[in-house]
Amino acid sequence: MNMKVMDVPAAPPAQDPLDALFDAMFRPMNAQGVYARTGAYESVVEALAALISVKRDAETEVFRFPPVMSRAHLERHGYLKSFPNLLGCVSCLEGSEAEIRAAADLHATGGDWTTGLETADLVLTPAACYPVYPIAAARGPVPPGGYRFDVACDCFRREPSPHLDRLQSFRMREYVRIGTPEQVRDFRERWIARATALADELGLPYRIEQASDPFFGRVGQIMAFSQLEQSLKFELLVPLRGEAAGTACMSFNYHREHFGTTWDLRDASGEPAHTGCVAFGMDRLAVALFATHGRDVASWPEGVRAALRL
Amino acid sequence: MNMKVMDVPAAPPAQDPLDALFDAMFRPMNAQGVYARTGAYESVVEALAALISVKRDAETEVFRFPPVMSRAHLERHGYLKSFPNLLGCVSCLEGSEAEIRAAADLHATGGDWTTGLETADLVLTPAACYPVYPIAAARGPVPPGGYRFDVACDCFRREPSPHLDRLQSFRMREYVRIGTPEQVRDFRERWIARATALADELGLPYRIEQASDPFFGRVGQIMAFSQLEQSLKFELLVPLRGEAAGTACMSFNYHREHFGTTWDLRDASGEPAHTGCVAFGMDRLAVALFATHGRDVASWPEGVRAALRL
Repeated sequence: MNMKVMDVPAAPPAQDPLDALFDAMFRPMNAQGVYARTGAYESVVEALAALISVKRDAETEVFRFPPVMSRAHLERHGYLKSFPNLLGCVSCLEGSEAEIRAAADLHATGGDWTTGLETADLVLTPAACYPVYPIAAARGPVPPGGYRFDVACDCFRREPSPHLDRLQSFRMREYVRIGTPEQVRDFRERWIARATALADELGLPYRIEQASDPFFGRVGQIMAFSQLEQSLKFELLVPLRGEAAGTACMSFNYHREHFGTTWDLRDASGEPAHTGCVAFGMDRLAVALFATHGRDVASWPEGVRAALRL
Repeated sequence: MNMKVMDVPAAPPAQDPLDALFDAMFRPMNAQGVYARTGAYESVVEALAALISVKRDAETEVFRFPPVMSRAHLERHGYLKSFPNLLGCVSCLEGSEAEIRAAADLHATGGDWTTGLETADLVLTPAACYPVYPIAAARGPVPPGGYRFDVACDCFRREPSPHLDRLQSFRMREYVRIGTPEQVRDFRERWIARATALADELGLPYRIEQASDPFFGRVGQIMAFSQLEQSLKFELLVPLRGEAAGTACMSFNYHREHFGTTWDLRDASGEPAHTGCVAFGMDRLAVALFATHGRDVASWPEGVRAALRL
């Protein structure tokens, strides 16, 4: 079960224009899409988080999630159907002292110690809103006004890439709405307007486009087509490399009754709740700011620094 | 390779006095030691982080690490010798579309889909300072003044527990010193004084004690004895349950030349650098504040709220 572990070249290859920004933002950590973040980069991420908090609706409940979550919960979410290729599971050495020692000592003798690993009950959280639905469902019937949540999480998706706008480990912030179809659609409409205003404040060029999730395989193509047909997903794309195609830095999602049914999250009359969310790719937005305004934060446009209080 | 996945009772059993604080700080996520954090709890963690930043030495370089790191690097650190039982590895479904689909679909038919998992080149980071040594080593000889780093990371250790002061996923902040033995010893002495002043500001009762790491197994007992004999580790313990024994909320560590030798981190004359760190258990400190001052942050002592700007 072991993959070859090599010292991969840490900085990405030189052909991507984003690479010129690498040292301003990151340090290599011997894996593609897994980088140490510099103080300058982190100040930008923190400033973005504070700016997004300012836009929060009243009566929004805050939760912050650890980077791991229940495997049973992710299975129930249907993740194995939709994105099995992106999933990171936690596995550990379990058993008696002698068993763990025997497994671990294989490493010292040049053997493959990972054959002793057992899959644990945890996975790496792949999206910031997943843990909130079971928490809401545990409260009983959804009240008439629904719920508003502010959630954030370090997320993991197994897609190693040399490109700095596709990390394996990245921060996602979300506002989540749970309620009636009208409440969720209103929420999404208002957030598309608010998010474009935010991108304007940040001096980021963008366009809003209809989109679909990267569902896995041939069956996934049908799911993606259905998602497009129902206009369930929009993205705010920022051009990071000058050309026309942009990088999705925010998304606006309507899940219909998917999570309501999955988690038995229903209103008092038994109807499954509808849900939606606006997601901010915090690392994508930070990279977009560096790509747009340059590697030196002190020389970013005054209005952008004022908006971020940097 | 699959462990039984059960819906474990999410809130810890009722006999621990800390349990009365659970709802003020956390929400269950179907795993012991893995909890959603409330807005109130998170405000305390953020305030603590800001207060610790104020105490930072001049000319300290900041890095923030993702919750995963290179498996090859952790192996080189010697983690499999010292703490193989605590390690969380990342494992993924790899291969062609047909292979991944076949593995994932075992879940829908009640089979064990985890047999298809392969160990990836990543592990969950178990301590915040591990990633900084290879970054420092890549710069060449350590300058005469040495290095000072401010690092932080979401850490993982596989020790499920019902006790709220022992999380599997927790935040660690560290100041790291790299240099001569004198530089590192001075650093540690100064930080013990500074940290006790910090605990006073926070209104936390504490004592400083010599300590050892929980090295694994019988060989580990010898390592722990040697660590004690050389006075390499001290801890700041806060009594969270009224009785005498406290919970380690900060630690002060002198690694001697361990990391210098491991990472070939040397001064200009070729001597291995010595290293040390002061570590702040951010979740432990936050839990200690709730345990000491009560579940309602607004009614904490005025001096404590002033120190935290809460």
